[in-house]
Amino acid sequence: MKLSNSQLKFIKSLHLRKFRQKYHNFIVEGTKIAQEVLSGNELEVEGIYALPEWVDANSGILVGRNDALTVIAPEELKKISLLSTPNQVLLVVKEPSIQFDANAVGQGLSLYLEDIRDPGNLGTILRIADWFGIPWVFCSPESVELFNPKVIQASMGAFLRVKCMPIEFSELRQALPDLAVYGTVLDGAPVFEADLEERAVIVIGNESRGISDTLQPFLNHRISIPKGKTGGAESLNAAVAAGIICAVFRDFTGG
Amino acid sequence: MKLSNSQLKFIKSLHLRKFRQKYHNFIVEGTKIAQEVLSGNELEVEGIYALPEWVDANSGILVGRNDALTVIAPEELKKISLLSTPNQVLLVVKEPSIQFDANAVGQGLSLYLEDIRDPGNLGTILRIADWFGIPWVFCSPESVELFNPKVIQASMGAFLRVKCMPIEFSELRQALPDLAVYGTVLDGAPVFEADLEERAVIVIGNESRGISDTLQPFLNHRISIPKGKTGGAESLNAAVAAGIICAVFRDFTGG
Repeated sequence: MKLSNSQLKFIKSLHLRKFRQKYHNFIVEGTKIAQEVLSGNELEVEGIYALPEWVDANSGILVGRNDALTVIAPEELKKISLLSTPNQVLLVVKEPSIQFDANAVGQGLSLYLEDIRDPGNLGTILRIADWFGIPWVFCSPESVELFNPKVIQASMGAFLRVKCMPIEFSELRQALPDLAVYGTVLDGAPVFEADLEERAVIVIGNESRGISDTLQPFLNHRISIPKGKTGGAESLNAAVAAGIICAVFRDFTGG
Repeated sequence: MKLSNSQLKFIKSLHLRKFRQKYHNFIVEGTKIAQEVLSGNELEVEGIYALPEWVDANSGILVGRNDALTVIAPEELKKISLLSTPNQVLLVVKEPSIQFDANAVGQGLSLYLEDIRDPGNLGTILRIADWFGIPWVFCSPESVELFNPKVIQASMGAFLRVKCMPIEFSELRQALPDLAVYGTVLDGAPVFEADLEERAVIVIGNESRGISDTLQPFLNHRISIPKGKTGGAESLNAAVAAGIICAVFRDFTGG
């Protein structure tokens, strides 16, 4: 019922990016996501730290997982949890290795996120991709790390289904030279009137400065979200903009 | 250069809802929003707590504001700030009193948020309303408080332009019995195909349970955001859903 010092030290180290990258492990918290992870085969679960009542209520998905399971008391869970509100289970999961597949990417719609810094935004964008059935989300190497616990939390399980990987845009472009590249810019053509293609990559720029000058030349199509006539805001939140663009693409291409 | 104990105590009390409601004051932080607040006349600024370099760089907007200004050192600002990253200025602002105007509301599009709990979501929705020129955002009394510092932060200045007030939905309905009420529900008609009216209120439901059974009977139009054919997520983030619906309304009605 109590964690050993080495368990405690190891799990807490995963709160930091440095150690996530060293051990290739990350933390998944919360009843619903834990159930989803344990019911599927997408991820390798190395540790399950759960309260007795959670273990009792979830015996079905714990079959064959005794080696990974540690039943702990609430005060122990609190020590390793990153959530402020009480919680019943924490998983230590192995980072999946995602193989870039140019052929698969070239067949549909994907997103490229340039320097998205806010973990909530990245998680929310993964959830958007999951909703609209967009299988690949690429990030610039300077974007927030996918396995940041706040990204995982905000994605609401989307990280299980959407393939997310860091890659330089130039590398993506080289692998897929014919893919149409759309970018959301303030002076672009209104997305509702634009000609949208089924096989494309949509670039979402950084929260404060939008799409960089380095990436701008790669855009084949500059699109925008039309502002209301009396609208005042300077911009929309990056995840909201991504959601609107993806919704219009999906409507236009019928995907 | 140093805050008095009573200043310190008062400003820190505004970190809590209880005292914001007692004093009808709230906190606005950050260079850009502070500049916007001080350049306009929308809000009464009762206190300006700024670093010397910020005061030097912003002398123009500080004219006639000497009584409210306290020049402080970074370590003092840190004591009263809610931000984790360094900052240059904090304002104590008087809560505006917003008068409900049924006539004005009845002339256009507005939003009704039912029990939105996440301050980031409320702030982001205000920013969306501001972008699309939606002048009124109503909240159920159980929603997160508008003057929560995280709401103010996420709204990026939208709280200056968008009128946001708590009101029971039944009261809003009584004041505007003819207004069309749209609600986003999972089994609604796809928003891209729906008949959208220029004068309407769009209801956005709570983050986990959507629109309540109490409010459902008020909906004249049940709409939805179509999921991709291979989409996996159970839902979209509430602010993202609001953004998509508002964008489609604005496109449809040309507002």
